[in-house]
Amino acid sequence: MTDVLLRGGLPWRPGPPAAQGPAAPAAQQRRPPATPEPGAPADILVRDGRIDRIAPGIEAPPDALVIDVAGQLVLPGLVEAHCHLDKTLHGGPWVPHSADDTLAGRIGNDMGRRAELGVPSVARIGALLEQMSAAGTTHVRTHTDIDPAVGLRGVEAVREAAAGSPVDVRQVAFPQHGVLTNPGTAELLEAALKSGVEAVGGLDPAGIDRDPVRHLDLIFGLAGSYGTHLDLHLHDGGSLGGWELELIIERTRALGLGGRVAVSHAYALGQLDEAYQDRLIQGFAEAGVAVVTAAVYSFPVPPIKRMRAAGVTVACGHDGIRDLWGPYGSGDMLERAMHVAYRSTFRRDEDIELALEAATHGGARALGLEGYGLAPGNRADLVVVPAGGPAEAVVVHPARTLVMKDGVVLHN
Amino acid sequence: MTDVLLRGGLPWRPGPPAAQGPAAPAAQQRRPPATPEPGAPADILVRDGRIDRIAPGIEAPPDALVIDVAGQLVLPGLVEAHCHLDKTLHGGPWVPHSADDTLAGRIGNDMGRRAELGVPSVARIGALLEQMSAAGTTHVRTHTDIDPAVGLRGVEAVREAAAGSPVDVRQVAFPQHGVLTNPGTAELLEAALKSGVEAVGGLDPAGIDRDPVRHLDLIFGLAGSYGTHLDLHLHDGGSLGGWELELIIERTRALGLGGRVAVSHAYALGQLDEAYQDRLIQGFAEAGVAVVTAAVYSFPVPPIKRMRAAGVTVACGHDGIRDLWGPYGSGDMLERAMHVAYRSTFRRDEDIELALEAATHGGARALGLEGYGLAPGNRADLVVVPAGGPAEAVVVHPARTLVMKDGVVLHN
Repeated sequence: MTDVLLRGGLPWRPGPPAAQGPAAPAAQQRRPPATPEPGAPADILVRDGRIDRIAPGIEAPPDALVIDVAGQLVLPGLVEAHCHLDKTLHGGPWVPHSADDTLAGRIGNDMGRRAELGVPSVARIGALLEQMSAAGTTHVRTHTDIDPAVGLRGVEAVREAAAGSPVDVRQVAFPQHGVLTNPGTAELLEAALKSGVEAVGGLDPAGIDRDPVRHLDLIFGLAGSYGTHLDLHLHDGGSLGGWELELIIERTRALGLGGRVAVSHAYALGQLDEAYQDRLIQGFAEAGVAVVTAAVYSFPVPPIKRMRAAGVTVACGHDGIRDLWGPYGSGDMLERAMHVAYRSTFRRDEDIELALEAATHGGARALGLEGYGLAPGNRADLVVVPAGGPAEAVVVHPARTLVMKDGVVLHN
Repeated sequence: MTDVLLRGGLPWRPGPPAAQGPAAPAAQQRRPPATPEPGAPADILVRDGRIDRIAPGIEAPPDALVIDVAGQLVLPGLVEAHCHLDKTLHGGPWVPHSADDTLAGRIGNDMGRRAELGVPSVARIGALLEQMSAAGTTHVRTHTDIDPAVGLRGVEAVREAAAGSPVDVRQVAFPQHGVLTNPGTAELLEAALKSGVEAVGGLDPAGIDRDPVRHLDLIFGLAGSYGTHLDLHLHDGGSLGGWELELIIERTRALGLGGRVAVSHAYALGQLDEAYQDRLIQGFAEAGVAVVTAAVYSFPVPPIKRMRAAGVTVACGHDGIRDLWGPYGSGDMLERAMHVAYRSTFRRDEDIELALEAATHGGARALGLEGYGLAPGNRADLVVVPAGGPAEAVVVHPARTLVMKDGVVLHN
């Protein structure tokens, strides 16, 4: 494997990781080894798929590929922490959105039209992964529909596309059409986990599945039994959503699943009064529950700045990308970080940087990635961006100069 | 002047213009001459800066420049209806945002730092206009700061930059730091109008200037006396903002200024209950008041679909682009239309198209442009986009294939 020397880039180092919940794995609590001061140019030597050294003036080993990235920002691989690869129509012709404006209408439209449109499609998933990779995404967590009609075909399609892609793809077995309300789904979730799917999902335990306690007990039980992650969609808003978040905190604590539980969307968090928000934020921090936001449409975005100050892991993702649920989304995680920062009304550099953190280290923590980040010994998953700093990279999200996965230059 | 024949494009024709208020100038009520069915390919012949014909199979005149745009969408020139060219730092180095999170803090920061940063700068305004033009913008209305410290220097800088640009730039004399609360400003607004500035502005008559009736009487009086347009910033929310909108409707009617009055932002509209919204929307439609939205950050977006159904003119723009008020903004009006559609939770093609309409015909109506649109006899201000339809153009906002202003190919 050829050594690679990136010459003169600006390795990005976010602020020190905030404290993790007590149950977070030790690997996630470790501070990265010292790297140069933020903003100081340094060379990065990559050997055998790992970062060997980060320092100014590294001498190039014989036969190394030397790439000049002077003055450009070097980021760790971008982490897409919430998408729906299996649903995508990416790469095909434009499909006008055909659902009405209700959630039930979108679910019915999805079930009714996916066969006609060839969803899930290994080719389209593969095309989207290729586009994501070109934009610097090295890791993806995707929620794959599981229901008695589609069975595990989505899981298999994603697995097949991922096998042909440099992107590290992890799946969530996602009961898009309910668990308790859709007999046979619970058994399929379990079959998915048995087959190696990395996480169990859930969906509006109250709003959709009508029995929050049984829904949560079921999916937390599966996560506990199979030692997997859990990442639950929660659109339920206001005090109902807030109460469900309490139930999630309680179960994460009781089962010792801290560091392996995430709540996606969590619109309620952005709607409650600050005192209640703070109680929930404290609960997330103590129990080790991560929050994943997509900042889609006009839906409420959780209070990222206060969550990070309390040490809660915050990740982000696109949600759907060009599918029967909506036509938007490019797969570019720097553009998505822009949406997250913009909807958070982040104007100051250090605030905008929180969105970049969500699209990198936050995602890595939520997914439980090992050996992630710009430090010697870590996997050489790198992205070079023609920007002078992290805020500019998010706001402008210019085309990537270079993408490297496990030491291999994929795009340059 | 060389004839130009655009071969085989898809000329976009939005739905029929909704009814205008009774006071709208007759020129704005005219339906455009018939063009081919939407989606049907046609050639466009451009002569002497005007659209000569739109039809399939036009024979190229001798010496005409023939450009193949087969299968691509042809739009009229994009209209940026609300920006702040004079404030921009575009084209210079990244300037970290330095204001606190209050409006007063941003105003103070702006006044304190603009001299240090060389604002207003003819060079930076010119660079931004060049970028806007490359993205297909042919007309801009910009709010230029007027206050006793800066005087009319902003107006002059914008005028100088515009003179060197193909973009048609119209200014609003904008009392960013108050009128009644900032003695000397009213006289400067009048001096600006005397010097040829096309519109008078205003700013939160209650929230900032503390005396809504006197503020509105003053600026409506100026618009009436000088025969100019009026475009007022209204961030005041809830019932206060709603009541100010009533005052604006009353004055527009009383002075017969319909078709020449716009309210920018109008956050209150997105916060009121539907019954109150509907009363205001009806008032806008009857009086001829346009609404200009920027869909910035997480601020409320007015109910575009219902406003358009009632015949209210809706335009859009960026608000600030890379300035002391915030670092965001690219100048690309298709990208801005995406933000407008996205924040409106528009998923269906015909809804997304409303955002494109705001960035084209809506802006043209708000600015009172004559001879605008894809019809014979109109100015040949055209943009070609590699997209199969208007919704795709907005969602993907791909790089423009061709930009033409007054029959001259600027970017190709």
